[in-house]
Amino acid sequence: MEKEKTFEEVFAELAALLEERKFKAARDILLEYNAVEIAEYLEEILDAVGIDKAVILFRMLPKDISVDVFAYLPIDDQVEIINSITDKEIDYILTEMDFDDMIDVLEELPANVVDKIIGKASREKRLLINTFLNYPSDCAGSIMTPNYISLGADFSVKEALTYIKSVGMDSETIYTCYVKDPGRRLIGIVSLRTLVVSDDSLLVRDIMRDDYVAVNVYEDQEMVSEVFKKYDFLAIPVVDNENRLVGIITIDDILDVIEEENTEDFERMAGILDASDKSYLDTGVLHNVKTRLPWILVLMISSMITGLIITKFEVVLSQVIVLVAYLPLLMGTGGNTGSQASTLVIRGIALGELEPSDAAKVMWKEMRVGIGIGVVVSILNFAKICFLDGESVMIALTVSVAILVIVTFAKVVGSMLPIAAKRVGIDPALMATPMISSITDMASVATYFLLAGLLLGL
Amino acid sequence: MEKEKTFEEVFAELAALLEERKFKAARDILLEYNAVEIAEYLEEILDAVGIDKAVILFRMLPKDISVDVFAYLPIDDQVEIINSITDKEIDYILTEMDFDDMIDVLEELPANVVDKIIGKASREKRLLINTFLNYPSDCAGSIMTPNYISLGADFSVKEALTYIKSVGMDSETIYTCYVKDPGRRLIGIVSLRTLVVSDDSLLVRDIMRDDYVAVNVYEDQEMVSEVFKKYDFLAIPVVDNENRLVGIITIDDILDVIEEENTEDFERMAGILDASDKSYLDTGVLHNVKTRLPWILVLMISSMITGLIITKFEVVLSQVIVLVAYLPLLMGTGGNTGSQASTLVIRGIALGELEPSDAAKVMWKEMRVGIGIGVVVSILNFAKICFLDGESVMIALTVSVAILVIVTFAKVVGSMLPIAAKRVGIDPALMATPMISSITDMASVATYFLLAGLLLGL
Repeated sequence: MEKEKTFEEVFAELAALLEERKFKAARDILLEYNAVEIAEYLEEILDAVGIDKAVILFRMLPKDISVDVFAYLPIDDQVEIINSITDKEIDYILTEMDFDDMIDVLEELPANVVDKIIGKASREKRLLINTFLNYPSDCAGSIMTPNYISLGADFSVKEALTYIKSVGMDSETIYTCYVKDPGRRLIGIVSLRTLVVSDDSLLVRDIMRDDYVAVNVYEDQEMVSEVFKKYDFLAIPVVDNENRLVGIITIDDILDVIEEENTEDFERMAGILDASDKSYLDTGVLHNVKTRLPWILVLMISSMITGLIITKFEVVLSQVIVLVAYLPLLMGTGGNTGSQASTLVIRGIALGELEPSDAAKVMWKEMRVGIGIGVVVSILNFAKICFLDGESVMIALTVSVAILVIVTFAKVVGSMLPIAAKRVGIDPALMATPMISSITDMASVATYFLLAGLLLGL
Repeated sequence: MEKEKTFEEVFAELAALLEERKFKAARDILLEYNAVEIAEYLEEILDAVGIDKAVILFRMLPKDISVDVFAYLPIDDQVEIINSITDKEIDYILTEMDFDDMIDVLEELPANVVDKIIGKASREKRLLINTFLNYPSDCAGSIMTPNYISLGADFSVKEALTYIKSVGMDSETIYTCYVKDPGRRLIGIVSLRTLVVSDDSLLVRDIMRDDYVAVNVYEDQEMVSEVFKKYDFLAIPVVDNENRLVGIITIDDILDVIEEENTEDFERMAGILDASDKSYLDTGVLHNVKTRLPWILVLMISSMITGLIITKFEVVLSQVIVLVAYLPLLMGTGGNTGSQASTLVIRGIALGELEPSDAAKVMWKEMRVGIGIGVVVSILNFAKICFLDGESVMIALTVSVAILVIVTFAKVVGSMLPIAAKRVGIDPALMATPMISSITDMASVATYFLLAGLLLGL
């Protein structure tokens, strides 16, 4: 299993060979690796050496290997390769690829290329491709595959296994087989495991399970991933509104969905508009400005309001200018404590651990956590301001009471806003750090100067 | 598939029956549902009705169903149930449970209960349990199971299938079988799919794959999940340092690992110390104070430094007190733009899309994105300060130049710190919003007042 050379060493060797146009030698090196590894080298070659040489090298791979390698390449690279190779090769790859991977590639290609490819497909396949291309992205239909094994209810176990043997090689997964009635409606499922361990003469009808769980073809992919997490399935049947089986979703595609949904949450929580599925290095500067600027502008407005509040208290400020020095502490602590609460609640909702009906419990808990943290931070700051900074007791009191109020407020607001968002159907992830800290900023400034006016008698 | 009653209605019915101690009727209702659903009802009953009645109800379930139900309960509830039932029942559940689930439960139980349980196990099983309990959590060993099918290289396909039939029912997954040499070293893998579609007379040796990927038993679980995402495996063999097969990890356990790792990132990025695997509502107030306070205290110190910088510029400030009103805008925009960059880079590193070697590319990109966003925000604010606020052109210039500098600085620092952390082996997730915004706060204040001194001639 261990490779003697590192990735970089092998890549350097490949690059040197390609430089000298020794394609055959390069190919022979690649063939020592498995399809995933070959895809990684090819990706690097595409990036660092250039598309022309990468395509020639790709063409020289044996056809059965190139299909696998192609499937493991990132979608951008797949499209780039398709744009560079001949019709015959496109055709070969697309007929050999797994159906759901093919749909992913087709979705990225320009319309005229897609039309050309679809034009070459058989009438039946053409219909199927068009149907799949029409499912909205992010729904079950967009990630399912039509390659599954369906068995008749009256097959015997022996017949079923023989049938699987005859068709099995082409199915993406054969570990769960599906039993349909004559109207194509799903009536049961049976696992290959059950078939293998069952007596040969039993009927599929007798060993199939009819308490299966299926998802609707328009179900959101996030919900589908919840079902996988809940039931530990390897695959799940997808049905239309009449309970007719239209495809299956396999767990390996769900891993991607989970990471995609998590990335969406991370990005939204940082105030970035839903970007593409592209990786960081594959997005352009302009795209990044467009997806990041809107929230910055929205939050700018809230900072202006905070500024406006400060202006209202200019008189207080000009009398005790030292108060300004504690503003960063108050605003920072408010924002940080609030975002801790919002993060935990957003994550709890995403994992299905928290419901809007838990609001009261959450608020009661965060209020106590807020007071706990607030008291510690207040006392430390009171001591610091009196003894280290040498300011008056009243200023120390103003700052530390303000901290206690602000931290408690931040915890409650930070935890309640995501729950409120969930209740009205907005993504809770939008109620994260940027939003929470601009709200706590306003509250911090107002609380602080009001208290200053009161305690310092300004 | 559709249920006539909602979860709440069924639960209300169950609760009413338990109130009247009609356990048998309640059990009959439960038995209409599958194990996952029964577990959900039982969880709710544990929470809302009480442990005593929940345990009685649990005991009344048929033994084969109760084992499945138990496996689907959250680990806290499992421990609670174990603490309430008799030795005989503990024994039954623990011998019937999947091995890796049993280890999870044992890890949560008090030591004396664990000893009692282990004491009852056979000598062989006792050794195995002790070995598993000793793997550090978060490593491959802690999530693997010893239940896999191993085949001899010289089995024929027919013999292999007969063998699987005889032992298969007890293995957590039989979809991949493992071939070992006499020294227990892994020499190949063969999928059930391959066995089923292969000719009966072929030897396992001829159809097994020896280009399998295995992980070391001490490999970090996050790395293991990377391998699953990369190769689309259903299961992966776990070997010790001598390449001896010690267990397998199945993909359903990896789904949990992925969500656990994502939660860890979300929490760290919000400045929360690594908490437990417990869900939000299951953690106590004190626990929350302890996990959230440390970072708040660290960040407090940085706010103090920002405050100190302000103090240095008190003279400037007292002359043009209106400058204070634009501080929230500068600090807020700096923090928000910086955290966008850090979030994208942290996520890119977590998904394996970014490496420390990409630092130059990332910095060049973020610099341009920063200038793009900075210019827009600057121009808008310049116009607003001149025309809406009616301040002098020089003040508007001070603020807008400061914004441009700060946004560009925030983008570069926000993107570079996670990469630097990765390079020195610190979790990049720690270089997220709280850390970045306290750095940009300091920079904002310093830049702003320096510029004010320069441009306003103070």
